[in-house]
Amino acid sequence: MNTSADIAMRHRIEPEDRDRVRQIVESTAMFRPDEVGVAVELVDERLAKGEASGYHFAFAERAGEVAGYACFGPIACTIASFDLYWIAVAPDLQGRGLGRRLVEEAERQIRALGGQRVYIDTSGRPQYEPTRRFYERCGYAVQAVLPEFYAPGDDRVIFFKRLG
Amino acid sequence: MNTSADIAMRHRIEPEDRDRVRQIVESTAMFRPDEVGVAVELVDERLAKGEASGYHFAFAERAGEVAGYACFGPIACTIASFDLYWIAVAPDLQGRGLGRRLVEEAERQIRALGGQRVYIDTSGRPQYEPTRRFYERCGYAVQAVLPEFYAPGDDRVIFFKRLG
Repeated sequence: MNTSADIAMRHRIEPEDRDRVRQIVESTAMFRPDEVGVAVELVDERLAKGEASGYHFAFAERAGEVAGYACFGPIACTIASFDLYWIAVAPDLQGRGLGRRLVEEAERQIRALGGQRVYIDTSGRPQYEPTRRFYERCGYAVQAVLPEFYAPGDDRVIFFKRLG
Repeated sequence: MNTSADIAMRHRIEPEDRDRVRQIVESTAMFRPDEVGVAVELVDERLAKGEASGYHFAFAERAGEVAGYACFGPIACTIASFDLYWIAVAPDLQGRGLGRRLVEEAERQIRALGGQRVYIDTSGRPQYEPTRRFYERCGYAVQAVLPEFYAPGDDRVIFFKRLG
């Protein structure tokens, strides 16, 4: 089935999500070990500090299994700007509109938290071309590019969307 | 005396720096209470976790008193990029080249930590015009502007310098 009709969204975090997030992020083969570590760290922060951590989550579940997740939160010292820090979908479940559903769920929660502006950072490397096209399809536009920010030849591309 | 010859630099942090940082940041009258809170939080993180916090400091001392400070650190998921998070000088000691000395000390430490690229975020509001000119005099250039990032009418201006 090429639909996401059998997907349920959950935003309450569970201790088991620590391993699930690690598995999903690793399974995409898009991130270095230090980046995987950062993804897991945000789960730890949330589990330890609750909402005060500033990290919010959306989990997409299919038949009781976590198929993907998004992590986002308010940006310190701003009135209504949020970062969408992470979005990842298990490789065998990609191409079903799940990423899109996760972005929409994140935006729904961000609106509920008073957010009006969403920023997403991603890499300018060729292998991230599908990622960048995906954000454009979700209504995001490039607002700035910081050359070589991540590493030589690896620009930081800042996407932005104003929530309606 | 209009020089900074009597200034000593210290980068080892002390528990007393928590109150000193709060006092200096508040005394500049440039920051909202939530921003002051963030400045103090970075000191707390450093005191609790040491270098693992990712926050490094330079303190400028004059006659045994802290006259200003800078806070900086490596940016996660980058190879050699650093953020200069905070720089503040007590109002009665401004105009003596102390800010400049603090930026240079931060850059020296950043180089020693393997950093090659330094980013500074600041506001596009008129009251930050002297701050922006100061960063330009220190060799930084605007690399991106994110309109209304902080609040309506309050852009985020990203300055950048490549360390030689």
